[in-house]
Amino acid sequence: MPATEESWHTGVGLATADLGSCTKHRRVSLSADSGGATMTETTGYSRTGLVLVRNPHLDLMEEDILYHLDLGTKTHNLPAMFGDIKFVCVGGSPNRMRAFAQFMRRELGLAGAGEDVADICAGSDRYAMYRAGPVLSISHGMGIPSISIMLHELIKLLHHAKCRDVTIIRIGTSGGLGIEAGSVVITDMAVDSSFRPRFEQVVLDDVVVRSTELDKDLAEELLTCSRDIPDFPTLIGHTMCTYDFYEGQGRLDGALCSFSSEKKLDYLRRAYEAGVRNIEMESTAFAALCGLCGLKAAVVCVALLDRLQGDQIRASHEVLWEYQQRPQRLIAAFIRKRLGLVRTD
Amino acid sequence: MPATEESWHTGVGLATADLGSCTKHRRVSLSADSGGATMTETTGYSRTGLVLVRNPHLDLMEEDILYHLDLGTKTHNLPAMFGDIKFVCVGGSPNRMRAFAQFMRRELGLAGAGEDVADICAGSDRYAMYRAGPVLSISHGMGIPSISIMLHELIKLLHHAKCRDVTIIRIGTSGGLGIEAGSVVITDMAVDSSFRPRFEQVVLDDVVVRSTELDKDLAEELLTCSRDIPDFPTLIGHTMCTYDFYEGQGRLDGALCSFSSEKKLDYLRRAYEAGVRNIEMESTAFAALCGLCGLKAAVVCVALLDRLQGDQIRASHEVLWEYQQRPQRLIAAFIRKRLGLVRTD
Repeated sequence: MPATEESWHTGVGLATADLGSCTKHRRVSLSADSGGATMTETTGYSRTGLVLVRNPHLDLMEEDILYHLDLGTKTHNLPAMFGDIKFVCVGGSPNRMRAFAQFMRRELGLAGAGEDVADICAGSDRYAMYRAGPVLSISHGMGIPSISIMLHELIKLLHHAKCRDVTIIRIGTSGGLGIEAGSVVITDMAVDSSFRPRFEQVVLDDVVVRSTELDKDLAEELLTCSRDIPDFPTLIGHTMCTYDFYEGQGRLDGALCSFSSEKKLDYLRRAYEAGVRNIEMESTAFAALCGLCGLKAAVVCVALLDRLQGDQIRASHEVLWEYQQRPQRLIAAFIRKRLGLVRTD
Repeated sequence: MPATEESWHTGVGLATADLGSCTKHRRVSLSADSGGATMTETTGYSRTGLVLVRNPHLDLMEEDILYHLDLGTKTHNLPAMFGDIKFVCVGGSPNRMRAFAQFMRRELGLAGAGEDVADICAGSDRYAMYRAGPVLSISHGMGIPSISIMLHELIKLLHHAKCRDVTIIRIGTSGGLGIEAGSVVITDMAVDSSFRPRFEQVVLDDVVVRSTELDKDLAEELLTCSRDIPDFPTLIGHTMCTYDFYEGQGRLDGALCSFSSEKKLDYLRRAYEAGVRNIEMESTAFAALCGLCGLKAAVVCVALLDRLQGDQIRASHEVLWEYQQRPQRLIAAFIRKRLGLVRTD
């Protein structure tokens, strides 16, 4: 599939200037094996703090049905339901994202903190969504296609709801690379399986290459927060994002494996040398989509194991549960700090 | 990323002959933009009826933890739990797959048909798994990475349980192409977004191209079954599998869209001319993995809309619910026929 000179300035004639955005232009070179073409894409934050939906067709639609969230512009008052959201946290597992919403209610001292939280997307079992004050907690399933569907509909939701100055954070699990199990990795750059900071998106006949840069200031702010938590191993590093958990991450324990342990370790060591500290399955698409739509974004994942030591996740349920709490605890500390809340307990 | 001469006969020295398989060899040509290399992969069914796990490392493992299914060879007696499974049905939504298990219990006249079914993977919320006699019903989430994780672990499960002569069917939803909403498409060939019958899998530094052929006899058998059901529009056609629901399927209603309605329709019409009758997000990986592991596989999806007419899924919950029943009804008729059950009600 050939890569083309596509950019947001062509196509249906979208003018980014109309959106009041502070844009920065970046030339992304496609590698030779993709045809050698180059393209320009525009990322950046909106001056108004609004989400930058980049689709002129949306204005022409009488109604927008967010199918996989079971929400819509005619059936729901989205500004009333979501207009005051300032933080969106996303993660793979629906149970974990419900637990995070309950945890945030306690952390923010909200009414009903001890009670169960209602799934806003209860009419669909594709994703689960919960609220805790200004925090929205949403599951995204596993893999780039799954998070991508959720993000398209979430970004339109934030747009329809006229949300401003939203920070979005993926809190997830991952395989570590040369780091201790239980370590928390804050991603400075999401890279693909060739260790390149890029995300390839098929658009009709073309492959468009997108930047996977994340917000550097936000990453530093999160690292600073982590230092206030005792016994909390945290680092900033590159995160490798793959389309597969087994062969695609060099695991020897899938239903298929055609390579040796030596070849696997050689690949993983080269990833480490390129700056990769953990491996997961959503970060490049997350960084690309959020970046294009003007959302300040971060990825915070705990490592469940060190992939240089093995492939199987062998820790007990209790240990894994405690590991999975760590990104939640860090984000709670960050949100409390942003909201100016001082811990009294 | 360069494509290589990788095959199942190289790597760690796997000898397919040892597995007692009836193999057929196929040369798959890589297109010029992937480097022009060619490779051979072997598909085919086992003479013993056993699943062909193609990973010699598995024999060296003392324990195999199927992490995302919350099952394992030391913690569970897999042959006792699953040894008699003959049909595996997979679909995206956990609720739908639970409903399918309940439906199959009634259809097969099993004890406890009116009762709730237990989720065998209750310890994990990544996938849901239910039993109805010889039928296993499992959810796989949305997209290739999500179904791929489930299939690796399912195939190892069938291998550890020593299951024989298993038929596997994906029952899903899709966007139709030039067909009426509610039509059921039985896939003869899964194709990628360039309409080619191939699946690209990243393995360490390489991209391996795999065949996406499905079992022709099984597809015909399913079509024959459909003719016994009144008012049941069914056809055989190609299914296009994409990595994205919005830009990747030419939708005008995502958070991002850089193309015109005319360009979208031109792309979809070319897909139709290439034989594509519906679009979904899992079939190429499903066909490739099942084919390599010797599982007779089919894909049966209902079309929720005709994409030549629009992008949004506007039908009511009731209509969509009835549409989603259709693949289930067809598979129930097929399994009853295979088991020699005659309807008495």
